[in-house]
Amino acid sequence: MSEQPGSVVGRPLAERYETALYGLMCYRELTAFERLSSDARFSPTLGDREALARLAVAEFGHYEAVRERLLARGADPEAAMEPFVAAIDALHERTRPGDWHESLMKAYVIDAVSGDFYRAIARALDEETRLLVSAVQSMEEQTGWIRGRLRAALADDPRLASRLALWGRRLLGEALTQARLIGDEHDFWGNLLPHGSGEEHREVISQLFAKLVQNHSRRMGALGLTA
Amino acid sequence: MSEQPGSVVGRPLAERYETALYGLMCYRELTAFERLSSDARFSPTLGDREALARLAVAEFGHYEAVRERLLARGADPEAAMEPFVAAIDALHERTRPGDWHESLMKAYVIDAVSGDFYRAIARALDEETRLLVSAVQSMEEQTGWIRGRLRAALADDPRLASRLALWGRRLLGEALTQARLIGDEHDFWGNLLPHGSGEEHREVISQLFAKLVQNHSRRMGALGLTA
Repeated sequence: MSEQPGSVVGRPLAERYETALYGLMCYRELTAFERLSSDARFSPTLGDREALARLAVAEFGHYEAVRERLLARGADPEAAMEPFVAAIDALHERTRPGDWHESLMKAYVIDAVSGDFYRAIARALDEETRLLVSAVQSMEEQTGWIRGRLRAALADDPRLASRLALWGRRLLGEALTQARLIGDEHDFWGNLLPHGSGEEHREVISQLFAKLVQNHSRRMGALGLTA
Repeated sequence: MSEQPGSVVGRPLAERYETALYGLMCYRELTAFERLSSDARFSPTLGDREALARLAVAEFGHYEAVRERLLARGADPEAAMEPFVAAIDALHERTRPGDWHESLMKAYVIDAVSGDFYRAIARALDEETRLLVSAVQSMEEQTGWIRGRLRAALADDPRLASRLALWGRRLLGEALTQARLIGDEHDFWGNLLPHGSGEEHREVISQLFAKLVQNHSRRMGALGLTA
């Protein structure tokens, strides 16, 4: 690792992390688009189909933004995404929604956990990266819409509530497992604490994951569900 | 039929046709988005996935444009789409692409035939409607990209050429059948020739379909395929 004095992470190393983070985000946004838009077809009403489609299109907009950033850095977007294809495809395969509500819940949970994870990784990177990560992940309007729709559905149906609570835990578990594997494989932890020992890295990871779980619990609480 | 003197089609009747045409376009664009974006996942490369996704997002943009137009007219978009759901869903079910090239071909053929059909129906309607139809259907850039991609693939692979030629004929047949059924059910022919007899209507329909087939042949020719 070629550290430069005076910065948290030396520039060459930071660039490698940035490219990796962008590649991860880029591929996740592309697949979020594909999955959400595929699921849209099974929505109960035309209005619901349109709403999921619109969420999907927003994800594609994020994909385009991150991709442009990779191009601006002289990186090849496909090459940057490639290392994350298997892990993210596996996450999707393990979390295929059974119906429209599960699709909504998947978008609600996975987008948020991913966003928290990206923000944590970006914390040690430059301002421009932090801003891009925030811009891509701030889907306030969309998240508000999903929350409202889920709350309305849950209020009417206690059986749905118990099913979606279980589904939410499953989604969280899969998202955390993938985040852990990806972080290990791409040494994102080294980015968070460049000079740390193995023990210190474990502590950082543990704090990060505790935070991810805590935020998730808060979001499930906002639906009236227990995480 | 409440005709008003001095116009090809009286205003109240024209409005009914316009709402029907918008409803048809709206639902077709929504489903084109859903199907293309679902197919995108099975693209051979990341670049190809992105390209299909981008085509799908353009279709959703058309959907939004037509939907806004319906809202501006005080129409309920869902109610306007509803009469076309069964026919368009059936068309998609009967034309499920087997692979990425068949998806491309489907977008190439069905978008173009639909566009010709909408333009023919809009011919008797007001200028604003004709402009909207043109705007929605002029996907020159996208069509050019699809054509280039298909030509490149076909040049390398005579077996693909024979398979896609067959697929193209199948797509045309299904598109024409649906156009005919939709035109009959929603009396779009009456729009084209308000005061015509049954015989004259059959003549108009026959000319319209001959034109659709002729344009299709030209487009297949541009791929080096025989229609």
